[in-house]
Amino acid sequence: MPLRFSHIPRSFPPSNYLNQCFPQRYSENSQCGYGSIHLKLKPKRNLCTKAVVSEFPNQKQYPKVGAQSTGPIPTSQLIQVVETAAKTGAEVVMDAVNKPRNISYKGLTDLVTETDKMSEAAILEVVRKNFGDHLILGEEGGVVGDTLSDYLWCIDPLDGTTNFAHGYPSFAVSVGVLYRGHPTAAAVVEFVGGHMAWNTRLFSATAGGGAFCNGQKIYVSQTDKVERSLLVTGFGYDHDDAWATNIELFKEYTDISRGVRRLGAAAVDMCHVALGIVEAYWEYRLKPWDMAAGVLMVEEAGGTVTRMDGEKFCLFDRSVLVSNGVLHAKLLEKIGPATEKLKSKGIDFSLWYKPENYRTDF
Amino acid sequence: MPLRFSHIPRSFPPSNYLNQCFPQRYSENSQCGYGSIHLKLKPKRNLCTKAVVSEFPNQKQYPKVGAQSTGPIPTSQLIQVVETAAKTGAEVVMDAVNKPRNISYKGLTDLVTETDKMSEAAILEVVRKNFGDHLILGEEGGVVGDTLSDYLWCIDPLDGTTNFAHGYPSFAVSVGVLYRGHPTAAAVVEFVGGHMAWNTRLFSATAGGGAFCNGQKIYVSQTDKVERSLLVTGFGYDHDDAWATNIELFKEYTDISRGVRRLGAAAVDMCHVALGIVEAYWEYRLKPWDMAAGVLMVEEAGGTVTRMDGEKFCLFDRSVLVSNGVLHAKLLEKIGPATEKLKSKGIDFSLWYKPENYRTDF
Repeated sequence: MPLRFSHIPRSFPPSNYLNQCFPQRYSENSQCGYGSIHLKLKPKRNLCTKAVVSEFPNQKQYPKVGAQSTGPIPTSQLIQVVETAAKTGAEVVMDAVNKPRNISYKGLTDLVTETDKMSEAAILEVVRKNFGDHLILGEEGGVVGDTLSDYLWCIDPLDGTTNFAHGYPSFAVSVGVLYRGHPTAAAVVEFVGGHMAWNTRLFSATAGGGAFCNGQKIYVSQTDKVERSLLVTGFGYDHDDAWATNIELFKEYTDISRGVRRLGAAAVDMCHVALGIVEAYWEYRLKPWDMAAGVLMVEEAGGTVTRMDGEKFCLFDRSVLVSNGVLHAKLLEKIGPATEKLKSKGIDFSLWYKPENYRTDF
Repeated sequence: MPLRFSHIPRSFPPSNYLNQCFPQRYSENSQCGYGSIHLKLKPKRNLCTKAVVSEFPNQKQYPKVGAQSTGPIPTSQLIQVVETAAKTGAEVVMDAVNKPRNISYKGLTDLVTETDKMSEAAILEVVRKNFGDHLILGEEGGVVGDTLSDYLWCIDPLDGTTNFAHGYPSFAVSVGVLYRGHPTAAAVVEFVGGHMAWNTRLFSATAGGGAFCNGQKIYVSQTDKVERSLLVTGFGYDHDDAWATNIELFKEYTDISRGVRRLGAAAVDMCHVALGIVEAYWEYRLKPWDMAAGVLMVEEAGGTVTRMDGEKFCLFDRSVLVSNGVLHAKLLEKIGPATEKLKSKGIDFSLWYKPENYRTDF
C-alpha cells in the first residue's frame, strides 16, 4: 500500500514512485526537521520519533473510466490529433479574446457566442481530415459521422462560455476521444490570466500513459483531510432539485473545507484537480463533451472518478465526482446520500447524449 | 444624464466621453446594424427605428469613498510609493510561487504562510523609508507608526492566502493609503495564470485620477440587467449569521444572474469589478487591508461602493458592496434587506480595526 503524504506539490512523484526510491516512511507532520519534505527528501534515520504516517489498507478501489486499449490506432497518433484539434480550436478562441462578442442565448442564461461555433468547426475539420470515419459529438453541432465507429470524439469548443463572454479567466477548449465508450486520449487548452495577461496552457492525457501540463507530468494532490482541502463545484443552467441539492453541498463544504471555488468551466476544474491545486470537483448534469477530457486527466494524474452516488462512472452519466483519490470516500459521505435522496425522489439520472447505436463496453 | 450602454468592453471610454464625441444615442439592442457598436461606432442616422436606449434620471448618487484631497503629499509621489511598495511585496510572493509552503493557522481554516510575513516586511520597509511618520495597518503586523498622522497605509501582503497555498490563481498584494480615513492612492498586484503560466498585472488608482491596469485606463462594465451580470462574492472564516445570510444571497443570485463566482481574494475581486469583467462583488466582515485598494479602484473606474445595507461606506465597516454603479440599486433590493435583517438581530456592524486616535473626516 502506498504511504500517505499531505500537501505534496503537484509536480512531485506519486507515492508508489517514492516507495521504490525511499522505502522508509516520511511525513510532513514529523517533528524532526523533515517538515519541508518537498525540499529535504532523504532516507529516514532514527531521529524521528513522532512521524505520523498512515496507510490505506481498506482504501476502496474505484473502477477505472479510461479505456483498456486505444484500439487499432496507436496512442501516439491519437494524442497527436487530439492535441492538434484542441490547439486549432484554441487559436480561434485566442483570436476572439478581448474582442467584442456577438452573444445569443440557448436559454435565459445559457449563452453561446460565434466563437463557440467557429472553434467547433475548426476542431471538426482536424478530426475529419485525420479520421473521416469516426463519430463526433460536439456541443454545438451534435452528432456527426459514422455511428458504427468505435471512436467517439467529444468536443467542447469553448468550455466556460460565460467566462469567455465576460473576459473572466479561465475557460478552455476541450477535446476527448472515447474508444468503445471509455476515454482514451484527451487535451484541454486552458485560457488563463485575463486582460493584459492572456496565456494558455495545454493539458493532455492518454489512457495508461499519464497526464501532463505543457509536457510536464502532473499528479493529483495527496491532501487527505477535508478541512485542509480546496474544492470546486459548478451549477448548471437548470435550476431543479439537483441544483438546490448542490447549493446545499456548496454550503456544507464551504463550512468544513478551506473553501469551495466556483469558477464556471468544468473541463478546467477537472484539470485543476489533475494538477493538484484543488482536491476535488463535482457537478450534476454535465454533458459528455464537458467531461470526456477532464475525467481522463484526473484518472491519469492518479485521481478517482465516480458518479456522485459513488457508483461506476461513464461519460453519459448525469453526475460526476473527481478527486485526488485519498479524499474520495470522505467526500462521498455527504455527496453520496444527497445524490441518493435525489434518486429516491425520482430525479432522472439515466444516461444521456449517448449517440444512438454507438457501441460501448458497458 | 449619461446614456446607457450594455456590454461595453472594459477599455472602452465611459459614456460621458461618448456623449462628448457622439451626442447621438446608440444601443447594443438596436435593430439597424449597430449591434457591434464596439467596432462600428459612428453617428446615428435615421435608419434606426427600434433603438432601445434608456437614461437614468432617478439613478441614486452614492457618496464617494475616495479622499477629496491627497493632503500635503502630491498624488504623483504618493502613487509612486504605493506602487513600489506593492511591487516589492509581489517580488517576495513571486519568489515563493511554486515552492513548498510552511503553513500555520490563525484558526481552523485561516492559514498564514511565511510568505505573508515576508511580503509585509518588505512592503513596510518601502513605506517607512519614504514616509517614516505615517501610520501603517498591516494584516500580519497590526498597527505601527504615528497615530497622529493623517495618512494610514492599509496593507494586505498576500490577499487570497488559501489560493496561494494551493497554487490556485488568483491572489494578490494590496496596498492602499488613506488620507483622513478616505482612500487616496492604491495598487494591487494580481498573480494570474498558475503553474507553467504565472504572470502578474498591476492595478492602480488615485482619488480623482482614474484607475489603471498595467497603465491602461479601465472602466467598470455598463451591464444594467441582473440576468446578464456575472457576480462575485466571498465567505469569511467566521461561520456566523452573516455567513449563512451570504450563502442565501449566493443561492439567490446564482439563480437569477449569469453566475456568482467564488474566487477567494477580495482585492482581486474588486479589481475585476473595476476591470469590467464582473459587475459586482460583496462580502461581510472584510478588514480595512482587504478593501482599501479595491474600493478606490472600483470608484475610480466609474463604479459605486456602499455598505451592504446601502449606506455610506467607510474603510472600517463590516460589509461592502462594490458594483458597476448602474446595477447597484437593483442589487441592493435583495442585499439590503438581508443585511437589515442581520442588523435587527443584533449582529455587530460597528466599525472595527480603526487605529485608536487615528483622525478621520467622518
